[in-house]
Formats: sequence, C-alpha cells, structure tokens
Amino acid sequence: MLLGITLGDASGVGPEILLKAVRERQLAYPFICYGDLTALEFYNGKLAYDVRLRKINDAREYEAGSLCVLDAGVLKPGSIRVGVVDRDSGAAAREYVVAATGAALRREISAIVTLPINKEATQLTDPGFTGHTELIGHLCGREDVTIMLASDQLLVSHVSTHVSLRRAIEAVKQERVFKILGLTSKAVARLRSNPRIAVAGLNPHAGENGLFGDEEEKEIRPAVERARAQGMPVEGPVAPDTVFHLAVRRNKYDAVVCMYHDQGHIPLKLLDFEGGVNITLGLPIIRTSVDHGTAFDIAGKGIASTTSLLKAADLAAKLAGDDGWQ
Amino acid sequence: MLLGITLGDASGVGPEILLKAVRERQLAYPFICYGDLTALEFYNGKLAYDVRLRKINDAREYEAGSLCVLDAGVLKPGSIRVGVVDRDSGAAAREYVVAATGAALRREISAIVTLPINKEATQLTDPGFTGHTELIGHLCGREDVTIMLASDQLLVSHVSTHVSLRRAIEAVKQERVFKILGLTSKAVARLRSNPRIAVAGLNPHAGENGLFGDEEEKEIRPAVERARAQGMPVEGPVAPDTVFHLAVRRNKYDAVVCMYHDQGHIPLKLLDFEGGVNITLGLPIIRTSVDHGTAFDIAGKGIASTTSLLKAADLAAKLAGDDGWQ
Repeated sequence: MLLGITLGDASGVGPEILLKAVRERQLAYPFICYGDLTALEFYNGKLAYDVRLRKINDAREYEAGSLCVLDAGVLKPGSIRVGVVDRDSGAAAREYVVAATGAALRREISAIVTLPINKEATQLTDPGFTGHTELIGHLCGREDVTIMLASDQLLVSHVSTHVSLRRAIEAVKQERVFKILGLTSKAVARLRSNPRIAVAGLNPHAGENGLFGDEEEKEIRPAVERARAQGMPVEGPVAPDTVFHLAVRRNKYDAVVCMYHDQGHIPLKLLDFEGGVNITLGLPIIRTSVDHGTAFDIAGKGIASTTSLLKAADLAAKLAGDDGWQ
Repeated sequence: MLLGITLGDASGVGPEILLKAVRERQLAYPFICYGDLTALEFYNGKLAYDVRLRKINDAREYEAGSLCVLDAGVLKPGSIRVGVVDRDSGAAAREYVVAATGAALRREISAIVTLPINKEATQLTDPGFTGHTELIGHLCGREDVTIMLASDQLLVSHVSTHVSLRRAIEAVKQERVFKILGLTSKAVARLRSNPRIAVAGLNPHAGENGLFGDEEEKEIRPAVERARAQGMPVEGPVAPDTVFHLAVRRNKYDAVVCMYHDQGHIPLKLLDFEGGVNITLGLPIIRTSVDHGTAFDIAGKGIASTTSLLKAADLAAKLAGDDGWQ
C-alpha cells in the first residue's frame, strides 16, 4: 500500500500542511508526494521545519525515513508567491494531479490524496478547468463521477454535484440514482461494517404522496427497489429533513444518498466543517481529497490544520484495503 | 398578554402535553385553551393528572388558577379514540383553530400557539385541508404566508415551503425574496438584539458566479440590495453549504433566509429535532406552533415531551411583546 499525495497549489496551504504532518509524524501510511521539490524546500525553510526531503524519479524508489517527492520540476527556486493567485503554481498544481492519476492507473500507487488547487489560478493556463474531480474523471475516461463526503458521523453521496439546482432536478432519473446507489454501497462497505444506507427524497416530505412532486415515486423508489433486489442495504426515499436526524442522532443509517449538492453538503458541513473528506466515486482508481481550499489568507504561516489531510489519507488507505475497490 | 393555545387532534399527544405542562407549572404565561373540555377531562382522568379545568365562554372570563377552556363542545364524552385517525377529532381540531384565529383577529388574545393536527384525520371532513398554516392564512385573508423555524441556535425562514422543489425554484423571484426579507427582519428584531440575517443562495456555491445558475444574480442579490437600502440587516447571497456553519458555529448570523423548505429544515432539524418551534410569517396575528406531529404511537401514555410547547409559548409571548408586530 503506497499513497500518492498531490501537493496542490504551491501558493496555498498544501505544502505546509504536508510538511507539518510529516514533521509531527501524524501520517501513518507510506506515501510519495507528487509536487515540486522547490515548493517543499521553500516552505521547509520558511517555517524552519527541517523535514528531510528526497527527490525520486519513480514511485518504486520510495523509502521510509524521508518525504519522497516525485518532482515535477515545474516551479523554479525563488518563484513561489505565497497567498496569491499565481499562473505558474496554478499550472504546476494541475501537473501533479496528471502525474499522480497516471501512476494510480498504472497501479504504481494504491490511491491518490489531493491537497487543494486554486481553481482561478489553474484556469489562467487551462481556461476549461472546472475542478479536480472533473479533471481526474477525464484522465480516467469517466465523465460520470460523483462526490461522497465523509465525516466521522456521516457519509453522504450525491446524484449530482456542481450543477444548478434546476439541472440537479433533471438529473434525478432512475438509472442515475441506481448507479449512485451502487457506487455508494460499494464505498460504504469498505468503511463501515453492516452498513445501512438511506436514500433521501428530492422534494419536501419526500413528496408527501405526490402532493409536492412525483420524482420520489417515478424515479427514486424504483431505483431503490432495484438496488434492494440486488442485495444493497438501501432504504427510501426518506423525508430529507428527517433523514439526517435519523442517521446522526438516532444512529439509524451510516450513509445518506442525496439528490443534489446542498442536500448533502449542508448537514455534513454543519456537523464537521473542518474535518470533512471528499471521496470521488465512479473512478477506476481510489481518490480522496481534503475538504478545504488553498486558504491563501493564512498560507505560509504554519497554522493551517492537518486534520482533513490525515482523515483523507486514512480513508484512502481504508478504501484501498488489500486490493482496489472500484 | 393572553395566549390562546389550540388543543390539536384529541386522538394525539396535544391534550396530554398541555395538561402535563400545566400540572408541572411549566407554562409561564397566562393562556386559554381552544379545545374540547371533554378531551381534556378524558386525558386528565386517564393519566390521573388532576389538573383543575374550568369551562369559559369568552376569553375575558380567563382567570389564573385553573386551565381555562373555551369549549368547542364538538367531541362527546366517551368518544375519544386514542392514537388513531378519527373523523370527529380531526374535524374538532380544525374548529379549535378557526375559533382561536377569530379571537386573535378580534384581539381577544395576543397570539395563537397550536398543538398538532393530524392532516389525514382533518381531511376526512375537509378534503381540501392542506395544513394548519394554510388554514390560518386563509382565515386571515393572507394566502402569501411562510414559515420561520426557530431553535435556540438558529432561526430559518423560507421563500417557499410546501411545494415541489421544481416549483420552489420558480418561487425564487426578487419580489417574493424581498417580501420574505422584510417579514424575517421584523420577526427577528423581536427575538434577538442587533440581529444579523444571512440570505442563502439557491444553487451550489451560490451559483459560483453564474456557473451553476443565475438566480443569485438575477433575483436574490437585487432583493438583498433593496432590503439593505431600507436598513434591513441582511447579507448575501451566501453559499448554502457554508451559511449554516457561519451562523451556528461561528455565531456570525442569527437567522438565515432560505430559498426552499429543505434548505432550512435540514440544518434546523439536525440541530434540534425535538425542540423546534414554527412561527408563521405574513399573518396579521401572531401564531407559533410546536414542531412535532400528533405522535399517535405514544399518545395517551403521558410520555410526550412538553419542550416544544413551552418554547412555542415563549416565542409567541416574545413576539407579542407589548403590542402586535405584523
């Protein structure tokens, strides 16, 4: 088991978080970093962390005892600009992801954990860049990916994510819901024993018997029934304003399949704004991500929390298990 | 200041909650009950509560020292059927609300607090009955009402409530949002000093600059700007998955104006499933409601919690203040 951690935008908090986690021996799993040695050296010096760095050219050169960097060699010494949108660090951050995804597809690493990219910075050289998840999906030849958010108390997956609410409603179709139930069941089975998964409705009170919309009966319930017939531990549709209470406070469900971005993001971020982890479902590789941004306002100060990175690494390792999972 | 508490469906937990609250001297405000003396006598006997009941014919006959009942005289002795959908108790529950609303409009009482109705039971004699809130709105000649939910930690109001998500999106129009901002500002000013109100976006990340929908820029922001120009303490649109964290964990806002039912109901019910209170905004009278149902499964056992009733009465009294507010 070897994780690949991408460094993220070198103007943000990614490098210092990784260095701090290594310095304080918080990272329990063997990993290599996909990034620029230059960026790690810069923050290592700036924060006087004195973490031992080692440049490698191939994942197989990994050795414990130092932070092994598969050096992209994009950023030049003296060029790191802390806390600002920078064309070069935006482009470099994209390169790290491309390299790590290739390595994961070739099974040189077991899973990818990504540190944050700044979308605006990366768009300066790649105007079509819409996000980490979409890029990795594209590199893997899977456009139809989705996000699961994980906190200690709750897992939520989504039928759609970064689309308008109007388009999200259109995405609630039996085939799509069924697919997300399958992806969710597979992932949750790696993370919880005897998992119980609730499926949220789309409309208030899950439609109240068709009074407030018919997607529950036309699209969601048939998908749930198909999934149950295949042995998936799913139940629903459940009223959206009750299902999270049942899951978190009554401990009735481990995960909730949500019909749109905010249905899952609102409760999860209310429960755990800092420590959430993002898991991409629907890829042929395992990828988790910290659930925070580049935090330019505090970059370079050594105060950014390592919590989300540690949880993301932990989940990636659990998902990787002894083999793959997707 | 005199509250009017409606008894709700006599087959459910309403009567026993009211009796228990009186017996344990939890209700701090003078009130009269709009209900059936028969129902109160039944539960008083069944649970051996021995609360002193007094039948009155007019709100002005209120006296402290006993539970004063403005008796509807609908239910017959021996007819109460505990824990089931019953035609008579459904019809009676509607009568209590009609009587209390009339009294509030005539200023015989300062505010209404409603105990739960069973929609199915009331529909047996009034097929068009869609809910408490709609009935009271209709009786007051105001169809355009909305719901604010209140917990100790958070207040949420809604641009729309009991409609499909598809129709909820259509309701996000500048005029409607502006109106809800006004109603919310007025109510929150009664409940919090120096209130700060956030306005949630409709789409993920509040549209991310138009990438995921344009309602934020076309409808919500202009409404917020108009409200601010009139001195209302509102801010937004704020990303829906961040605004509740800011309000509750960072204490940045007292209230959040939500664009649809579940946007507000999901976080509020996750924070406080039992103790939430419902406030109707847009009425010429004050009305609060417990935020639970008839709970037929536990009715008649004396175990239902009085928490929500006490909070609803407390909020009604605060909103009533020395005068009215709407």
